[in-house]
Amino acid sequence: MKVLIVHAHEEPRSFNAAMKNTAIRVFEEMGHTVVVSDLYRMRFKAVADSDDFLERKDRHILVRQAEERYSTNLGTLAPDILEEQRKVLDCQLLILQFPLWWFSLPAVLKGWVDRVLSMGFAYDQEGRWYDHGGLKGRRAMLSLTTGDPESCFSPRGIHGSMDQVLWPIQHNTLYHCGFEVMAPFVAYAVARRSQAEREALLQAYAIRLRGLDGEAPLAFHPLERYGDGMQLKAGFEP
Amino acid sequence: MKVLIVHAHEEPRSFNAAMKNTAIRVFEEMGHTVVVSDLYRMRFKAVADSDDFLERKDRHILVRQAEERYSTNLGTLAPDILEEQRKVLDCQLLILQFPLWWFSLPAVLKGWVDRVLSMGFAYDQEGRWYDHGGLKGRRAMLSLTTGDPESCFSPRGIHGSMDQVLWPIQHNTLYHCGFEVMAPFVAYAVARRSQAEREALLQAYAIRLRGLDGEAPLAFHPLERYGDGMQLKAGFEP
Repeated sequence: MKVLIVHAHEEPRSFNAAMKNTAIRVFEEMGHTVVVSDLYRMRFKAVADSDDFLERKDRHILVRQAEERYSTNLGTLAPDILEEQRKVLDCQLLILQFPLWWFSLPAVLKGWVDRVLSMGFAYDQEGRWYDHGGLKGRRAMLSLTTGDPESCFSPRGIHGSMDQVLWPIQHNTLYHCGFEVMAPFVAYAVARRSQAEREALLQAYAIRLRGLDGEAPLAFHPLERYGDGMQLKAGFEP
Repeated sequence: MKVLIVHAHEEPRSFNAAMKNTAIRVFEEMGHTVVVSDLYRMRFKAVADSDDFLERKDRHILVRQAEERYSTNLGTLAPDILEEQRKVLDCQLLILQFPLWWFSLPAVLKGWVDRVLSMGFAYDQEGRWYDHGGLKGRRAMLSLTTGDPESCFSPRGIHGSMDQVLWPIQHNTLYHCGFEVMAPFVAYAVARRSQAEREALLQAYAIRLRGLDGEAPLAFHPLERYGDGMQLKAGFEP
């Protein structure tokens, strides 16, 4: 199996880096191949702009999705986008490794999502989205750290449930592109943990990854359950 | 009143730019002062990194929140962050103007949030968050465009309700910093609209902004309703 880890933490001594290193070790021990996109080290360009398109469908006005489709079809997306797209196509499992900043992806990783998961590549019109998305047949998983403890992210917690917080990423982005989304691995409140607790967390992460093949992905509704106006048909619960 | 619009679209002929221009015109007609942070034009640095701190609390390991507090207190955050923080402190209303990309902020705007709303400035330990956040006494509002129509964002829609999609931004970011959050203005499916429909949308936006003073903010639970483990106390619905 080929695993792509997209890593979004600058500090090599961070807990995020330790999680990334744990994943590399575990997967290599299992005989898998691991590719890492270390976004800070790569100085990955986060901001989507007109330089992303070597040719233009329309030079007078920038309509991003139209240019994404056009350049995806022509092969004229910027080289750094094409390189990341090759890595994504080549993997069977994508892991996004990041600290939860403002309850979402750090900007550098959001920029990877904005630029790499382009229209025409990761999804398209005419129903090529969600379980019919362009990247179907692959699995994806979020691996993240938080500042606050788990109780803050429970259904009655102050930030809302982690499912709710991650919905735009897990359902509306990864599942939208066709990935089967595995339950996230969340390392809560890492800054407040002892060294022993951190090591236990890394152990738990290693065990989780070793057993990943036996897990079922998160249960999201397939496209066929949506009818007029892309509304969930009667008889199904949102 | 002073209004700060943080604008995150590269194309001056986009609908987002037209919404930004509409807001400027309406507020100036009302006698208000408008400041615009046009992130693409400013080439705003999106990626939070160690260059954000002119002094370091710890040069051996980068723990971002600790450095944010330290540099906020010393006044040694990078000059572009300080400039944006001054604009935020000086406004009574903050508008984030953006296209909804992957059901969240474009990376350049996420980077503005990551870097500008620093610990020690926008929130802090010891209960200085949510309705006790560092920026309380100000209002904030999202003004956004989408690719898909409104039905996709209804409670039974394929993307989930717009409240659910915007939860991490409206509740967990803006309200977390102390802003009173006004209902968002969402221009759905702008790429599929006729010129007349676009003009009607801009008219509706202008009317909405003119009446904003008479609106109540979104009803989120105040901090006092959360008890042990920051869980909502009995008797309140999440």
